[in-house]
Parts: sequence; C-alpha cells; structure tokens
Amino acid sequence: MNNICLRLAYDGTQYHGFQSQPEEHGKTIQGELEKAWKRLAQEEIKIVTAGRTDKGVHAAGQVINFKSAARIPQDKIPIAMNSVLPEEIRILEAKLVGAEFNARTSAYWKRYDYKIENKRTADVFTRLYSLHEPVPLDLNKMRQAAARIEGKHDFKTFSAAGSNAKSFVRTVYHCKVQSSSGYITVTCIGNGFLYNMVRIITGTLLYVGKGKIVPEDMPGILKSRNRALAGKTVSPAGLVLRYIDYDGNRPSSIFEDIESNDLEDLI
Amino acid sequence: MNNICLRLAYDGTQYHGFQSQPEEHGKTIQGELEKAWKRLAQEEIKIVTAGRTDKGVHAAGQVINFKSAARIPQDKIPIAMNSVLPEEIRILEAKLVGAEFNARTSAYWKRYDYKIENKRTADVFTRLYSLHEPVPLDLNKMRQAAARIEGKHDFKTFSAAGSNAKSFVRTVYHCKVQSSSGYITVTCIGNGFLYNMVRIITGTLLYVGKGKIVPEDMPGILKSRNRALAGKTVSPAGLVLRYIDYDGNRPSSIFEDIESNDLEDLI
Repeated sequence: MNNICLRLAYDGTQYHGFQSQPEEHGKTIQGELEKAWKRLAQEEIKIVTAGRTDKGVHAAGQVINFKSAARIPQDKIPIAMNSVLPEEIRILEAKLVGAEFNARTSAYWKRYDYKIENKRTADVFTRLYSLHEPVPLDLNKMRQAAARIEGKHDFKTFSAAGSNAKSFVRTVYHCKVQSSSGYITVTCIGNGFLYNMVRIITGTLLYVGKGKIVPEDMPGILKSRNRALAGKTVSPAGLVLRYIDYDGNRPSSIFEDIESNDLEDLI
Repeated sequence: MNNICLRLAYDGTQYHGFQSQPEEHGKTIQGELEKAWKRLAQEEIKIVTAGRTDKGVHAAGQVINFKSAARIPQDKIPIAMNSVLPEEIRILEAKLVGAEFNARTSAYWKRYDYKIENKRTADVFTRLYSLHEPVPLDLNKMRQAAARIEGKHDFKTFSAAGSNAKSFVRTVYHCKVQSSSGYITVTCIGNGFLYNMVRIITGTLLYVGKGKIVPEDMPGILKSRNRALAGKTVSPAGLVLRYIDYDGNRPSSIFEDIESNDLEDLI
C-alpha cells in the first residue's frame, strides 16, 4: 500500500464542510474526494485530513493522506482527480509519503486567514470569500488585541459552546491583522485550533475594532473560559485554511514573505 | 418627474442577463431592479441601460436611468436599494441628471474586460469570474492581433451569427492584452459593441495565443464578415462591463492610470 498525500483547494460555499456526515446533510469535500478516487481507482479509501473545515469554510492549502493499492503515477493524480472532481475542488499536488505520515498528527502548524471587507458597499465579486463590515474599524486597537491572543493559552472562551475537546490549550504563534485596499485579514497561525476558534477570535477582534471592548479586556476574556464574553462566531465565508506546515519552518517566515512583496497573497 | 441615474455592479453568474425577458427564462438584473424600486417607492419604472449584458456576464460599472416621481433623496437611494436587492447586485452611486440624459445614447464609450486565468490548475476562488485556459499562450502574438482590431471597422465577423444589427460598424479605441500574476485581461474600449463581440474577439485572440492563427490573419478575418473564421464565443464568466464614460474623457486615460499604479484594477 502507498501512502498518498494530496494538497488541495476548495470553495466551501456550497459544501457542508470537509467531513462526511453520518447522515447525509449535504455534499462534503471528503465525500467528493472519496467518490472521485473510487471512480479513478475502483478503491474505497479512508481519508485523514489536516483540518476538518466547517460548513462554508474554504481552503487554499488543505492536506489529506490515504492508503492506496492503486497504480496511478503520483504526477498524474492531480490532473486525473481534477477531471472527475467538481470544479469547486482542485487537487494542487500529489506525492507519495512515508508510511508514518499522517496529515493531522504530522503537522507542525496551520495558518488560517479570515478576510473582512471593510468598505461601505460590498464588492459583489468578493462577497463569497469575505465578511462585509461597513462600519469603520480601529485597526490599531484590533492589532493590540490580536497580540494578546498570541501564546500558549486555554482557549475555551474562543471555542463553540458545548465543545467536547479534551483540552482547550493551544499555542497561537501569531495573530496578525493586515490591511490592504479596503480588506482586513486576520491571520492566525497555531499548532491547532478548536471548533470555530478563528471565527470567534475574529468576531472578538471586530468588537475591539468597533470599540465595544478594548484591547486591555482581552486577557480577562481569555482567562474567563466563558464563551459569552467573546464576540460573535462570524460567517464561514471569510475563512480560508491557507497553509499547513510539515517541514518545521518557523511560523514567522510567512510574515517575512509578506513584508518583502507578497501582501496581496494575504487578501 | 426626476431623471435618476444609477451606477451599479453585479455578479451575473446566476442571472439570465440584464434585460427582462418577454417570457420568464429566469431572473434578470433589470427585473430585480424594478422589483426593488417598486418595493421602495410603489412605482413602476422603465429602465434605460447603457449595455444589455448577456446571461452570466458581470458588471462593475453598469449605468442605468429612469424617470421617477418618488421623493427619495438621491444620497439615500444606494443604501435603500441595497437593503432590498439580492446581494449579487449593489448600487454604487445615484444622482439626479438632466431630463435629456439617456444611459445608452449619452455614453461616449464603454470598457469591457475579459479575464483569462492562464494557469495549469484553476484557482477555485476566481473560477466564477474568469475563463481557465491551462495551455501557455503567446502574449506578444495576442497583443499584435489585438492591435489590428483597433479602429473603425465593420465587425460582422465578431458578432453572433444571425444578429439583426442595422450596422456592424463600430469603433474600437483600444484592444489591449495585459498580464499579471497568471491572469491575462483583454480590455476592449469602444463606442459600442455588437452582440457577443468582446467574447468572440477574446476567443479569436485565444486562437492566436495558441498558434492556430497568426496576427497577420486578423485583417483578412475582419474583412471577411464571416463569423466562421473567428474564434469561439468564450464563456460569459470572464466578462465584466467595467466602465461607461459620459464625460468625454479620452479612452486612453484608462491606460495612463494602469501604467502609474493601478494594474491590479484590471485583473
């Protein structure tokens, strides 16, 4: 059996999240991938995913792996899969990896970007991939609050109520707020994220941006472990799973790239 | 009666074009605008549009006008209309204009942009707003061919077969091919466009880019008045009605802007 690793992108707008549902609530990314592989290789597979994105959430750099006995050369897999997948899902890269590789547990860190369109009138061409927020936002305050989220903390405050995670402790290496051409991007890089965590963090930063709370409130909100003190869980449309690191790169290397020339990559 | 002029944007993906259909084939931009105005002002209006975009075509700068007896202050119109319109349609600006203003006949020139994504794998986030073309394209040849389209010509070759236009003579002030970050944009600026004209011009430029025909073939293709010699009518998804000029600005002023700093505006 080969261990096949795929990097993929998807527009999650019409999908009921990544993971196949016990009962069918609607089409899922995993379901479409399994169907496509079955059509190509007449083989049932068990997919391991780096991050189970929620309903409506997008990915630009999702990673999965699965064991397969099929004899499809790895460099042919993207084109073959893309020929049978719906156009909302594209395989970007395929490679054979060692038997021990696991898309979830082998990851060092993940990067999510949340995009806010901070313009008076929403742009019809970005509405599916951002949250429209017409009220002017105080970026500096948002940045001060974001800095207080960085570090190793119990993030129960920022997880969906009723979550049954064993531990709420995660390390957020970076929480940065960038702005370009009317779009604000909240980038969260961490070793793992709780259910809805990035969307609740962003909702809380929006409260800060509007002056409902101040950056100095953040440590208390974090410590409270009380979901009710955090902001709203903002729309999934603005969220993209951007990148997963398996090489042990420094998380900050992403911001070095951005500073050099790649700001557009963030928006 | 006031003469109200609106500038608007729309994502045409789900729409059966701008113009209301005699029989109902699906929702139209015009139909949604009339419905929204009726809801706001309890008034039936007759909309004049600058360019009747086809099914699936987008607009970033469509212009319409209509006569109204309603007493809604002009600066309140965009927010009021946007509160009742579907999110695929946004009013960008409203103003009162002179009784003689007509969105169609008062226009000096129009700009359409056609966006081609020239990457091996399609980006899931731009697929609704571009044509994916994985084959490498010869940009220089496309530019040479585009230059031969500029000027006052009979454009019958580049109009949908069976078109019943009275005259096929139009002036194309500029036909430019720009490239940035894997996207190629064909910008056509002219005093008017025939049915499907920009999409057929782009389809023909793609033939040139792929080497099926050479730039030197263009004058003969133009003169032939034979639709069969031109390229395919490419997908409406890549087409955007970008701007309509009512002030008599020089069409080339757009490219001066681009050269200064605004390349991203084109893609």
